[in-house]
Amino acid sequence: MLMLPNMYKIAGELTPTVFHVAARSLAAQGLSIFGDHQDVMAARTTGFAMLSSATVQEAHDLALVAHAATLQSRVPFMHFFDGFRTSHEVNKIVRLSDDTLRKLVDDKHILAHLERSLNPNNPVIRGTAQNPDTYFQGRESVNSYYQAVPIIVQQKMDELAAETGRQYRLFDTFGDPEADTLIISMGSGSSTIRETVEWLNANRDGRYGGIVVRLYRPFCFEAFLNAVPRSVKRIAVLDRTKEPGSNGEPLYQDVVTTLAQALTDGRIDDMPLVTGGRYGLSSKEFTPAMVKAILDDLGGEAPKRRFTVGIKDDITHLSLDYDPSFNIEKDNVVRAMFYGLGADGTVGANKNSIKIIGADPDRYGQAYFVYDSKKSGAQTVSHLRFGPEPIDAPYLLQSANFIGCHQFEFVYSSDLLSKAADGATLLLNSPYEPDAVWDQLPEKLQQQIADKRIQLFTIDAYRVAREAGMGRRINTIMQVCFFKLAGVMDTDAAIGEIKKAIEKTYGKKGREIVERNFAAVDAALAYLHEVPVDPSRLSSIGDKPVVPEIAPIFVRDVTAEMMAGRGDELPVSKLPVDGTYPSATSQWEKRSIAQFIPEWIEDNCIQCGNCSFVCPHAAIRAKFCHEEDLAGAPEGFQYMWISARGFPEMRYVLQVYPDDCTGCNLCVDACPVRETDESGNEVRALRLVDKEPILEQQRANLDWFEKLEWNKRSEIDFSNVRGVQFLQPLFEFSGACSGCGETPY
Amino acid sequence: MLMLPNMYKIAGELTPTVFHVAARSLAAQGLSIFGDHQDVMAARTTGFAMLSSATVQEAHDLALVAHAATLQSRVPFMHFFDGFRTSHEVNKIVRLSDDTLRKLVDDKHILAHLERSLNPNNPVIRGTAQNPDTYFQGRESVNSYYQAVPIIVQQKMDELAAETGRQYRLFDTFGDPEADTLIISMGSGSSTIRETVEWLNANRDGRYGGIVVRLYRPFCFEAFLNAVPRSVKRIAVLDRTKEPGSNGEPLYQDVVTTLAQALTDGRIDDMPLVTGGRYGLSSKEFTPAMVKAILDDLGGEAPKRRFTVGIKDDITHLSLDYDPSFNIEKDNVVRAMFYGLGADGTVGANKNSIKIIGADPDRYGQAYFVYDSKKSGAQTVSHLRFGPEPIDAPYLLQSANFIGCHQFEFVYSSDLLSKAADGATLLLNSPYEPDAVWDQLPEKLQQQIADKRIQLFTIDAYRVAREAGMGRRINTIMQVCFFKLAGVMDTDAAIGEIKKAIEKTYGKKGREIVERNFAAVDAALAYLHEVPVDPSRLSSIGDKPVVPEIAPIFVRDVTAEMMAGRGDELPVSKLPVDGTYPSATSQWEKRSIAQFIPEWIEDNCIQCGNCSFVCPHAAIRAKFCHEEDLAGAPEGFQYMWISARGFPEMRYVLQVYPDDCTGCNLCVDACPVRETDESGNEVRALRLVDKEPILEQQRANLDWFEKLEWNKRSEIDFSNVRGVQFLQPLFEFSGACSGCGETPY
Ligand code: SF4
Ligand code: SF4
Ligand code: SF4
Ligand code: SF4
Repeated sequence: MLMLPNMYKIAGELTPTVFHVAARSLAAQGLSIFGDHQDVMAARTTGFAMLSSATVQEAHDLALVAHAATLQSRVPFMHFFDGFRTSHEVNKIVRLSDDTLRKLVDDKHILAHLERSLNPNNPVIRGTAQNPDTYFQGRESVNSYYQAVPIIVQQKMDELAAETGRQYRLFDTFGDPEADTLIISMGSGSSTIRETVEWLNANRDGRYGGIVVRLYRPFCFEAFLNAVPRSVKRIAVLDRTKEPGSNGEPLYQDVVTTLAQALTDGRIDDMPLVTGGRYGLSSKEFTPAMVKAILDDLGGEAPKRRFTVGIKDDITHLSLDYDPSFNIEKDNVVRAMFYGLGADGTVGANKNSIKIIGADPDRYGQAYFVYDSKKSGAQTVSHLRFGPEPIDAPYLLQSANFIGCHQFEFVYSSDLLSKAADGATLLLNSPYEPDAVWDQLPEKLQQQIADKRIQLFTIDAYRVAREAGMGRRINTIMQVCFFKLAGVMDTDAAIGEIKKAIEKTYGKKGREIVERNFAAVDAALAYLHEVPVDPSRLSSIGDKPVVPEIAPIFVRDVTAEMMAGRGDELPVSKLPVDGTYPSATSQWEKRSIAQFIPEWIEDNCIQCGNCSFVCPHAAIRAKFCHEEDLAGAPEGFQYMWISARGFPEMRYVLQVYPDDCTGCNLCVDACPVRETDESGNEVRALRLVDKEPILEQQRANLDWFEKLEWNKRSEIDFSNVRGVQFLQPLFEFSGACSGCGETPY
Repeated sequence: MLMLPNMYKIAGELTPTVFHVAARSLAAQGLSIFGDHQDVMAARTTGFAMLSSATVQEAHDLALVAHAATLQSRVPFMHFFDGFRTSHEVNKIVRLSDDTLRKLVDDKHILAHLERSLNPNNPVIRGTAQNPDTYFQGRESVNSYYQAVPIIVQQKMDELAAETGRQYRLFDTFGDPEADTLIISMGSGSSTIRETVEWLNANRDGRYGGIVVRLYRPFCFEAFLNAVPRSVKRIAVLDRTKEPGSNGEPLYQDVVTTLAQALTDGRIDDMPLVTGGRYGLSSKEFTPAMVKAILDDLGGEAPKRRFTVGIKDDITHLSLDYDPSFNIEKDNVVRAMFYGLGADGTVGANKNSIKIIGADPDRYGQAYFVYDSKKSGAQTVSHLRFGPEPIDAPYLLQSANFIGCHQFEFVYSSDLLSKAADGATLLLNSPYEPDAVWDQLPEKLQQQIADKRIQLFTIDAYRVAREAGMGRRINTIMQVCFFKLAGVMDTDAAIGEIKKAIEKTYGKKGREIVERNFAAVDAALAYLHEVPVDPSRLSSIGDKPVVPEIAPIFVRDVTAEMMAGRGDELPVSKLPVDGTYPSATSQWEKRSIAQFIPEWIEDNCIQCGNCSFVCPHAAIRAKFCHEEDLAGAPEGFQYMWISARGFPEMRYVLQVYPDDCTGCNLCVDACPVRETDESGNEVRALRLVDKEPILEQQRANLDWFEKLEWNKRSEIDFSNVRGVQFLQPLFEFSGACSGCGETPY
């Protein structure tokens, strides 16, 4: 955004330039780092040419086209593709050779570019001030350069096709050449549309088509008109952006304008019905089911002139309903989902799996990794596809035939099987013996397993890792089980490749580490067991409630749904219109992401308050109270005589919030008590310990601690660190990842 | 531009806001501070509502509507009007009363606004981060607020009408209610269109109409459709902006989209032919002649689908030809033009004249002041209209019946009578006796006077001022003559008002100054004489060439035309496509704006180089040369023995560039020679003197000085100020005004 003024100048001065943009949302009611076209659309006024790539391969190919075209045309380019969706997608692509690069870029244009650079030997002036007498003429002097761009871009695309066989056009038409119904779009969504349209044409006798826009600016009237099948009666134009107050989103306006011009010119006989929709804002999923909803609406009695898809708009009712069960995932594609923790190596192992599988020239792979809102320490879900053909399905798995759950807790908190296909495989990393696993599962999951005839497997990967001397590193172990169960390639061959990767990664760290990894890999399959499924024996274990009943309504209705991963289903009416949220809601989000938390050794504590002061999350706090207030406290509740003269009846309490602490260790580092006792042992007042064993005790302690009143400001000396720490913290539980404390406030 | 990211947030958070914007050009191939809609159009993506005012009165009225509407709707507003054209126009308007302000703004909306402010007693969070799960829903949650805006704005406009009688609509239609041809536009250009359309309908049997857009965002489909007469067959949409590569400028796209939707909905039967044009970029004039050209083209066989108007585009041939002689200035309007120098008080006197005339409730006045590109010291042309009805003609005078030329030199450099009506009055401030004036005029001007039957008057205003003890202050003197000759009101009454103004301005400075001014006013008419016109006696004096023959081609073809005030006529092909200009052209622009220039007293000079060092315009320079190089120098050429041992044959020369110096006095201030001789006189090496008496001598000296070679870098010690000053300056003659040195480099 802040480049916009410069972009006007770059374009005005006809300076060959390419900006490669992973297009993203703009901060409006809230900030979002995810993907849509709002940022590039905000720059469409600048005079930059705009070239859009829909897939990872295209982003690679059209990057070259953009560079070649800008050098020849002198018009600067924005080459953009969907942020996160395309920019963070792992896919197998064909790389362009240096020869191809050289063929498309003419040296003479590079030379001409260099000759235009500022040079004291041949001085010129740029960036002058112009007055009413000449500015307008100057602004019009570039017209012919813009007229040439579409021709040059198509020429470069043709040259690329000659080199690589991959043919692109300014506007590419797909589907039925005699289509009566068309969807026009730009970016990754086009691939979803193409896939769906082709499926519906093949399986449901559809007469559907689509156009994917590649060169959006300059918008070429002729090329667009040539791309529209003459048979078309109805068109939906999709924009991945929103401009409130506009008379239709940008691409929609461009399409309607062009068609209306064509009608006036007699180039078409009738004006097709054109609707315009918004989709995919901020990386909102765009699936075949939504494409079908658009086509169904368009084929109906009264198509919605303006619509949204992918959300439920229960206020202005613009949204189209769609059937989430509509699924066109291909049978010859292995679709695997993995639930892991941010730091447990799941994502890394998955990337490695893709490499292994993709190395086979007849196998293709794609992966997409969904991170929780909180950067680290939280859940990541990997979506992997493998198949015999290039994979161009730019949306998350709609139907998985393999689900790996790498942390057992997720059986209680995540709807692991919501996307599971009938007969899919579920692999659980569980601490229980194979015959004990079933009874530990919540009833709802058991029911799903039975209904969907899921094959259930288990492995105690942490045990395997431990026994192989690998601590808590379970990623390769789970990877081996995946290869065994998913049947995507020969298991032995896969294990060979996994070992090669281990060699490469750990080779330098010494033979021993490599051997330990090898041992874990070799042991993995021995610990992999099928779990007998017994639908007659249900556990009656319920799901964990996300927030307690006593949480405020907004938290229960909105925040909790987001925490439970059901934010997508929140209707528009549940969201604040102006991005104003109630405060103090993060206390309800018990993320419990720490594996280790600090333990207070009260006898050693000098009550300095440093620990509480440095905690970026307000997860360790101090209070003082009267000894009477401790009557009835849980057994094991920790406290000390307060170190202040004249208050013999007062007690000092330091309490860790065990489910909010991120285990960052800052408090332990900050604690000044560092002595060595007679036996040479370190004496500390805080130390990091395994959370699990003390969790229940600390939770009980916390309950009591929270009942203690906050100390009154009038009773506190806040001229020192210790005193300030008795105040109620007004910013708490930031949601940042452990350690960095980013975004605490 | 740099506010854009914030504007997205302000809109996203539904914060009532009004930006009042004097809309301006954006820097592209060159920077321009003048007016068009590029900046506000760049912000149309942000979600701000956009309200456009076409006149000074509207800017006043709709400012209130914007504030009232934003408070009620919560949608922020950009209220914009044409930069310079409207923002710098002087016109007589009716002021809104505080009562009206109170009636339109409801206290409860102000209160609600205040209650939404951040407040520690009722904390909320705004500006959070949102993820794919909820951002899209949040973005859609504002829809109903935008739907309400057009209704609220119209309601506020109606309330304003009830209070003031001035009725505005979201889209105001004018001209023939059964129009077949329509021009749609926004901003001040609409007034020109209305005036022309009404004139053509009345005088040429036109069936023309127009729509002026007031609420541009949110764009109201219904209101727009209701504003379009059903009879319309052809429409031209005008945009005062340019977005290279777009499929039509923004308003054009909006109109076409709306009509195409209406066609599909069966709301209209046929799609009208719609063309789109750009006009008025960077305050390019937009006149009735151009409106007529648009209507003529639209009525022709093959209207240009996309066009420009106001320039000559000889490359892409988009421009419409127009007949500059087409003129619809009203006979009952006095149209007066004044040519003055930036600092000679002409503009101030004109503003005062408007006040005097406008004080009469039945008289209206308008003024527009055209400043030369260089801020000060250069020509200003005032365009004034006075008449019995409110004046809404937002373009410069097309036909003047009074022309005042306040500096005699302009008869040689300016085409004073190009806009003169037949029988108009020309008043010259001239140093010549009435019967000598005629023979001093250039032949071309004499011919124009004869052809247009101009009445010629003269006054030696500088003499009147001198004799009244007012130095060079001629403004009130010329003002008196204007009132006498223009007949816009009773001369005696006007003189009474002028004297009142003098009292007010100078009263505090003492009676004497007031009396001197009174004397000048009283004397003025005695020195005003009609000049006998004798077409049989032509002077054969030619126009001064703007630049010498030896100037480079670009300077002669382009720069000189701009300097001569003919830049508007330069066709597109003459302008560099990328804003790249040859350097070292300012040396050809001899502005000669200084009244005083430094004189070098060589005998006192210590050759320190300070003067040359501080000059922001490189207008005083030093060279050294061999005594032989001075053989043949003009008599009076100034030089000194160089103050350096061992070079007895070398001479030091310091030369002022008399036509480039701005008279800023910096060099004189910087000269360290400040002594007092025996007789108590100040001894200086530089002093500021009247330019006129020494101009010819100094020009001759400069000619010789320029022939002296630049001193070679190898012969110069540039470790000190003096040495550096022998180098050729690479930045010279900045074009800045005197003194400030703004934009020298
Ligand atoms: S480990 Fe980090 S998050 Fe936990 S209490 Fe200590 S400082 Fe706070
Ligand atoms: S930093 Fe250590 S000594 Fe200080 S209050 Fe915390 S635990 Fe006690
Ligand atoms: S008066 Fe100013 S512009 Fe003129 S020569 Fe001196 S410093 Fe330069
Ligand atoms: S500043 Fe004065 S003394 Fe120095 S060179 Fe200039 S005129 Fe001479």
